[in-house]
Amino acid sequence: MKVENLDQGKFDPAKVSKFLVHDSPYFRIINFNFRAGQELPVHNHDVEGQLSIQVVEGEGWFLGEGGSATDARAGDILICDIAEPHGVRAKTDMRIIVTIAPPL
Amino acid sequence: MKVENLDQGKFDPAKVSKFLVHDSPYFRIINFNFRAGQELPVHNHDVEGQLSIQVVEGEGWFLGEGGSATDARAGDILICDIAEPHGVRAKTDMRIIVTIAPPL
Repeated sequence: MKVENLDQGKFDPAKVSKFLVHDSPYFRIINFNFRAGQELPVHNHDVEGQLSIQVVEGEGWFLGEGGSATDARAGDILICDIAEPHGVRAKTDMRIIVTIAPPL
Repeated sequence: MKVENLDQGKFDPAKVSKFLVHDSPYFRIINFNFRAGQELPVHNHDVEGQLSIQVVEGEGWFLGEGGSATDARAGDILICDIAEPHGVRAKTDMRIIVTIAPPL
């Protein structure tokens, strides 16, 4: 049993900031922090499993296949297969938590 | 791909409120909302896997073996084996997200 705090995840004006909260055979939990305008480009991996992207603070868009963009605000959680194209773009400063099960 | 919002999870003065965000062979995501003083009693399950308990709003305590209680505030994430005793008690109104991988 361990307790982590998202305060450990900082912002970086040069790139999306990544804080690995946890990694195990069961799931990987990552905190990404975006400055307004920063983006995790659409990507996917051809493996089994699903992931969740939870918006903790701020707002932006969930990105998907073919340039799709869906509003993403604090309290929203996207769930998709790891094999589905997914990404995030920040409108304001934005904090998200990504949980990948099982990890790649 | 689907997007859920935690606003769907309500508070109930009579008991801890539970909103099933997602369930699949890979992970189960549940939003629990507590009124101040409500509790998810310590429990465990003798199966493989791990879970995370993320505090979205409010504060309280993560409960563990032998009556242990650790401060839990917005931004804190507890990670433990499903087989380890775990629970939550709310000091203020409190919203948490529990992710179980794989589900029981």
